[in-house]
Amino acid sequence: MNAPTVTDPTDTHRRRRDRLRARLDEIGADHVLVSDLVNVRYLSGFTGSNAALVVGSDAGADAIATDGRYITQVADQAPDLEAVIDRACAPALLSRVASSAPTVAVEEHALTVTAWRALGDLAEESGTRLVASGRVVEDLRTVKDADEIALLREACLIGDTALAALVDDGVLAPGRTEREVARALEFGMYAAGADDIAFETIVAAGANSAIPHHRPTDAVLSSGDFVKIDFGSVVGGYHSDMTRTFVLERAADWQHEIYELVATAQRAGREALAPGVEAAAVDAAARSLIADAGYGENYVHGLGHGVGLQIHEAPSIGASAPGTLPCGAAVTVEPGVYLPGRGGVRIEDTLVVREGDAELLTTTDRTFRIV
Amino acid sequence: MNAPTVTDPTDTHRRRRDRLRARLDEIGADHVLVSDLVNVRYLSGFTGSNAALVVGSDAGADAIATDGRYITQVADQAPDLEAVIDRACAPALLSRVASSAPTVAVEEHALTVTAWRALGDLAEESGTRLVASGRVVEDLRTVKDADEIALLREACLIGDTALAALVDDGVLAPGRTEREVARALEFGMYAAGADDIAFETIVAAGANSAIPHHRPTDAVLSSGDFVKIDFGSVVGGYHSDMTRTFVLERAADWQHEIYELVATAQRAGREALAPGVEAAAVDAAARSLIADAGYGENYVHGLGHGVGLQIHEAPSIGASAPGTLPCGAAVTVEPGVYLPGRGGVRIEDTLVVREGDAELLTTTDRTFRIV
Repeated sequence: MNAPTVTDPTDTHRRRRDRLRARLDEIGADHVLVSDLVNVRYLSGFTGSNAALVVGSDAGADAIATDGRYITQVADQAPDLEAVIDRACAPALLSRVASSAPTVAVEEHALTVTAWRALGDLAEESGTRLVASGRVVEDLRTVKDADEIALLREACLIGDTALAALVDDGVLAPGRTEREVARALEFGMYAAGADDIAFETIVAAGANSAIPHHRPTDAVLSSGDFVKIDFGSVVGGYHSDMTRTFVLERAADWQHEIYELVATAQRAGREALAPGVEAAAVDAAARSLIADAGYGENYVHGLGHGVGLQIHEAPSIGASAPGTLPCGAAVTVEPGVYLPGRGGVRIEDTLVVREGDAELLTTTDRTFRIV
Repeated sequence: MNAPTVTDPTDTHRRRRDRLRARLDEIGADHVLVSDLVNVRYLSGFTGSNAALVVGSDAGADAIATDGRYITQVADQAPDLEAVIDRACAPALLSRVASSAPTVAVEEHALTVTAWRALGDLAEESGTRLVASGRVVEDLRTVKDADEIALLREACLIGDTALAALVDDGVLAPGRTEREVARALEFGMYAAGADDIAFETIVAAGANSAIPHHRPTDAVLSSGDFVKIDFGSVVGGYHSDMTRTFVLERAADWQHEIYELVATAQRAGREALAPGVEAAAVDAAARSLIADAGYGENYVHGLGHGVGLQIHEAPSIGASAPGTLPCGAAVTVEPGVYLPGRGGVRIEDTLVVREGDAELLTTTDRTFRIV
């Protein structure tokens, strides 16, 4: 029997809290009160729908709060953390640390004004100072650890498997509706082991493929249509994201032309990924090719985005995106060209930024395919 | 050919904005800047993922903002509103009304502190005063109009149809897993015409049925199990919500006992629904029966909640819920008794509060059923 290679989840979450703890000085606080539920999950493992977490300079005082529905679940998922059971999670944790009249950083980007005012009233009573944490946890989340990458890889593999089954089963065929194709693909992801669907599956046929984010309708697929499929699965909380565009039965020259253009731009974008590279430079590597070919105005969105516990997270990869890409970031690369009223192409992969070549997690063939 | 009976959606949304407009004096503002996306949808019909809406004392100045992805969609869905295309929706609308140095009410319960600070900076520059709107739009939303009730009725019928098919097809049987049952039920809702699934379907078998909000697992259904199923569909944005609890093949006396108790309490809760009745009194009508039978500690949640464009919305029906129920509110009634380690029962319907008896929208049989 080999020993399991998966890290003890408790270690993982404590290590993440330690990384946050190491940034307390920079934040200018002696506690961070985390109220964004995805950030709470990242730092504790707890997945309930009502929670907050406090991380302080003294690790022994870290605590989580949730309500009575989750007593068992919080003990299972975050056994190393003291759990405060109180429906008003963030106020309960603020009261808990208030005796030392500390400076507490709160997530102003994730707190409603109403919730923040309530915390402010509590802080004033106890002489606690509230400051803004900024997106420090989101920033930590950009660098994925090995366990996170393993889950992303599994989620991406499920996408590859389900799309292959869809094609093999002949579902991508004239006469089917966009909705039928979307449902079949989602069914295939569940069959392949998905915990959930990552976002509303996009199946866009014919002229609809020119709409970047099209909801599947009862539109019927026809011979000669582009069919653009953008979809993903969730495994252990981690999201995959992939887009492929097919042509049904017979292709016109213009379809060949824009497909090859997008494929070339997408490859350039993938090849530009490297630790320390500016996100805007990666966007430019792909966008310049599309612009040079005269289709700049038909490419109406950014090149990509981070992916992890959320389908869209930091870092953003766009023309005006700030910052550089860290080693270990999981991102999408997804240029597109959309010709209103005719059709459009997008090709998207999920990759991990590594020294040397980025690692492709989505592996479905991206050559021009007539099905 | 009969004339269609559905109201022109443009009229519907303008009428809703007029109801909000009529409350401007009470709010103490001459404009409301609506940033909650569900509220934007309610007041305009627009369903994009980035939007804001301004409603002012002069109806002609009402406007919506969204970004470039939605130019076509906003023109289709909200043709009567001027559309401002700007990625920073709420700031763009605030700038638009700022020339008259007005008092603008913002949704502090839906704005993050970060977004509110940005609005505050803009307001200061232009001499605009920001105040809080409170939950005035959520309050308007509690009273459903005929079109909304028609969509809720359709969503509930889809739930009834899919559950009947699940039982008829023999899917509720020993050997199946919770996950399989959940997926089959969701497939059935799509087949019956659902646009979407209302929330993560709960299928909880055996001891898992004692967990109020259980995620379906690979646990296998066994003879003698309670199987608790809580699920819903979405039609035109409106959610249905229903729970039924079955027993597989053979029932024990304790199962009969708690089922009949919950069914009696649920009927009492339904019968207590009436315009003007205090929400807490409706809760008490059901809860007192369960408490009198000695199971008060096994009923760990409120009696129900409003349902509409969100699966949980106002009014809340619980022991400490404030206020009374308006005529036309759509609510759930869903008491439960949960015996840890053994099993639990919940019975839930969606109803509309009317003069006289409430209207049941979910109609699946709620007598004790062994399948």
